[in-house]
Amino acid sequence: MTRLARIAAAQMGAVNRSDARPHTLQRMIALLENAASQGAQLVVFPELALTTFFPRWLLSPEEVEGYFEAAMPNPDVQPLFERARELKVGFYLGYAEKTPQGKHYNSAITVAPDGTIIGHYRKVHLPGSVEPREGARVHQLEKRYFEYGDLGFQAFYGPQAWGAPVTGMLICNDRRWPEAWRSYGLQGCELMLMGYNSAAYDPNGGSSEDAALRTFHSLLATQANAYMNSTWAVSTAKAGVEDGFGLIGASCIVDPNGVIVAQAQTLDDEVIVADCDFDACKQGQEKMFNFANHRRPQHYARLVDQVGAVRPPEDIARPS
Amino acid sequence: MTRLARIAAAQMGAVNRSDARPHTLQRMIALLENAASQGAQLVVFPELALTTFFPRWLLSPEEVEGYFEAAMPNPDVQPLFERARELKVGFYLGYAEKTPQGKHYNSAITVAPDGTIIGHYRKVHLPGSVEPREGARVHQLEKRYFEYGDLGFQAFYGPQAWGAPVTGMLICNDRRWPEAWRSYGLQGCELMLMGYNSAAYDPNGGSSEDAALRTFHSLLATQANAYMNSTWAVSTAKAGVEDGFGLIGASCIVDPNGVIVAQAQTLDDEVIVADCDFDACKQGQEKMFNFANHRRPQHYARLVDQVGAVRPPEDIARPS
Repeated sequence: MTRLARIAAAQMGAVNRSDARPHTLQRMIALLENAASQGAQLVVFPELALTTFFPRWLLSPEEVEGYFEAAMPNPDVQPLFERARELKVGFYLGYAEKTPQGKHYNSAITVAPDGTIIGHYRKVHLPGSVEPREGARVHQLEKRYFEYGDLGFQAFYGPQAWGAPVTGMLICNDRRWPEAWRSYGLQGCELMLMGYNSAAYDPNGGSSEDAALRTFHSLLATQANAYMNSTWAVSTAKAGVEDGFGLIGASCIVDPNGVIVAQAQTLDDEVIVADCDFDACKQGQEKMFNFANHRRPQHYARLVDQVGAVRPPEDIARPS
Repeated sequence: MTRLARIAAAQMGAVNRSDARPHTLQRMIALLENAASQGAQLVVFPELALTTFFPRWLLSPEEVEGYFEAAMPNPDVQPLFERARELKVGFYLGYAEKTPQGKHYNSAITVAPDGTIIGHYRKVHLPGSVEPREGARVHQLEKRYFEYGDLGFQAFYGPQAWGAPVTGMLICNDRRWPEAWRSYGLQGCELMLMGYNSAAYDPNGGSSEDAALRTFHSLLATQANAYMNSTWAVSTAKAGVEDGFGLIGASCIVDPNGVIVAQAQTLDDEVIVADCDFDACKQGQEKMFNFANHRRPQHYARLVDQVGAVRPPEDIARPS
């Protein structure tokens, strides 16, 4: 039996601060319908798909609260859930989550074609800082507005209709962290889903990174980690000029060889689709990256025993 | 003070089973002189540079022993050490190591311009198998001929003449393992040195991997791991058709953005050179990949607590 799913990345152009939620939902439903018309069984939306990327500003607590979802689904997003169920299409949705206990996370869910939420992830690798950088006109304040994800990296099975792939979720900056991918790879992941909002400039200040370099970084990290874990990866951007600030595009679907099989060409709303054969993960998982045969964790202690980099002692003689 | 070193990758074409050691040494010395004439201060030779890639065959114990070096340096390789010291050039050399206790490793050393061995590494990620695959005409028997490296991933300082970069070594298949790179990244590595012999076909059998795909994999893994650890990487092939079996080329020098700044164009003896500015590592190490700020080891336990992949329990309900 072939284990094949047709999967779409539904890239979104800018969602501006002034955009009303129903308008954004209409765009997402149009993308969903477009993907479904091409036979897609799963549609991957971006990180924080429902709103502008608000961590770029220091905002009043009232405005920040307005960007969070206190329940999922909720009346604002119910039309998307309903249309997806009608079309028998699943989806990945990134959103700002507020829990009943008042905790805030940068989260994503995966929803099955029958409307069931089958996966829930909270972003572990929050970039940026808690405090704004003095004098800067743009910030990266995810560490201010969100708590670190507390659910770890828990893989789950996709529906039988997709071939029951072992599936994992990441969000944006997570895709640059090989520890996150390997945590899923060690669960035999065959399908990695992720959305992002990545600045087209250095969000931490500095002038050495432009849109082309940051697009290259995004693709490089996704391709290599897919290859090194023998998994499919579907990675979706919110792109374009959002409230005056650039976001890269280059949403992509990557095969277990790290080869891009579909890539967005615009910085706007755009659907890309690929057929993902999960049996193609076997070549890597059973040979080159057969972890049971080849990993040597006895030499990996630094990965968990320390957080930051520790240079060799300065008193080790440095030859001239 | 700029921390700059001019570094060469000295790619080698095939070293056939019938090639006498002095002939191979002459080729290596010619490459060293070529690199030095271009101002290189460090020359990176391939894995198992002195011999054919003998793990591709099931061989008699006598023949296998002949491929190992019982001391380093030794009379056979002394001319390379002497010429390098005359030229004030350091080098990385991959070789088959036999210890006084009779242990066998796939090893590499880094030698300073004054002839001092400043780094010693034994390959941790041995690919292939202990037993030959029945009926196959080519094998990958590193697990048969070598013991697993027992020195871990220990970074060291390069000489002041190179800007004292924190330096790490890998060998061949190691470069595909993000755990290995991260172990060095967590020591603040700024320069990663590695040599390889990578088959231009699937050495574990199978027909889905050709030379182009395997070359892509080699570059992809090197570029992404350099980027994700904000380090320079110099990666050198033994290339070409060796004893009738193809080896990929594409030796490369990669900057801390993961960008290839020099790449070999042939499958033969060839020197590529680049100026490596170690201060260029700061952009990544202080921002995006500031590990102290952004890593979350509390969620990485799987990386050391398990060796092989463990799929989620089958009794987790799989939605239809």
